[in-house]
Amino acid sequence: MNGLEFPAMEAMKVGILGSGDVGRALAKGFLGLGHSVKIGTRDPQKLREWLSTAGDRVSSGTFAEAAKSGDLIVLATLGTGTEQALHLAGPENFAGKTVIDATNPLDFSGGMPPKLFVGHTDSLGERVQRWLPGARVVKAFNTVGNAFMVNPKFPGGPPDMFLCGNDEAAKKLVSQICQHFGWGVIDLGGIEGSRHLEPMCMVWVLYGARSGAWTHAFKMLHL
Amino acid sequence: MNGLEFPAMEAMKVGILGSGDVGRALAKGFLGLGHSVKIGTRDPQKLREWLSTAGDRVSSGTFAEAAKSGDLIVLATLGTGTEQALHLAGPENFAGKTVIDATNPLDFSGGMPPKLFVGHTDSLGERVQRWLPGARVVKAFNTVGNAFMVNPKFPGGPPDMFLCGNDEAAKKLVSQICQHFGWGVIDLGGIEGSRHLEPMCMVWVLYGARSGAWTHAFKMLHL
Repeated sequence: MNGLEFPAMEAMKVGILGSGDVGRALAKGFLGLGHSVKIGTRDPQKLREWLSTAGDRVSSGTFAEAAKSGDLIVLATLGTGTEQALHLAGPENFAGKTVIDATNPLDFSGGMPPKLFVGHTDSLGERVQRWLPGARVVKAFNTVGNAFMVNPKFPGGPPDMFLCGNDEAAKKLVSQICQHFGWGVIDLGGIEGSRHLEPMCMVWVLYGARSGAWTHAFKMLHL
Repeated sequence: MNGLEFPAMEAMKVGILGSGDVGRALAKGFLGLGHSVKIGTRDPQKLREWLSTAGDRVSSGTFAEAAKSGDLIVLATLGTGTEQALHLAGPENFAGKTVIDATNPLDFSGGMPPKLFVGHTDSLGERVQRWLPGARVVKAFNTVGNAFMVNPKFPGGPPDMFLCGNDEAAKKLVSQICQHFGWGVIDLGGIEGSRHLEPMCMVWVLYGARSGAWTHAFKMLHL
């Protein structure tokens, strides 16, 4: 079964790779929509307390267990750990599935602000698609902080989620998820658009670092 | 005289390099605020008809004449022509002045959509600052089409102009200009932010190419 076979919001099994703030925020979002979630992590013990408060449709496991269980998979690892996480998860467990790539290629080794470790002629989104050739990768949820990923409430109306990917049906599913989470959707085309969305994350970060506030989100205005 | 010495909106002499749509749109904006404008172009004859309708505070000349005459200078050339235009204009004519860099490193040689010819570890904004070491370069007006640069009217309120540059006083002047033109302002810090604002132009372009509409502009929502 893969993302294509789901009517819009029938209950899905969602595998989330990464148990940090992004993974947990998106897990809560999917649980709130009635889906079930398995969070893949290197250290399942770490999640025990959080899991005890998160209801009975969520569990944790290894990266491979989360990937295998998911009809839809979300990548919510650190950018620097994405390749290894996919290796541990087993690329064969992604075949035919819609994969939301929420990662950013942020290198914090030089302190704040981070730098992008890939860009211009390539991107982490494109690498993910190459590492998972059988998957339907959609770059999304990378241009906003985890606090606003689900049900963002801003004066000025819903912000816009910028996404891109090569598979139209996968983008349709992810667009529906974004809309259920309270976002408008801006589709940039193929996965190579990640070359521009990953720098856009940096626009979000630089403004946050400079303003000292992290309570902002992009919107595209239209006539 | 340089940008620092202007009280906010005293009448300025503005030199604009480039007589295309961007140059003309910004010229009209500055004229509307009461400033005088000299547009630098390779072919002053080309502008004769436009000039005849644009009032008596605007003239045309060579790139060098426009740069020399301006207390504030705007770069509105094609990205691919920027280096040569600055060479023709004479870098010494920019010394101490605030320079608005509205260019984008767009390479159309492969058709639509264009590609960026510099990025990730460098940017056209940073190159401009290196080509004009004595100038106070501010990247701005590169994330929106020329039709909306001045007095943009969108449902949802004023869009935001994203800018960056190394000189705080120059950014203050450019921020005031943006506000007078009807924009909010988002300051990203130093000129190296151009590495992210130039890809953000591509987000604007890719969405336009995909949607078939070119009537959109970015806004940053805040709590």
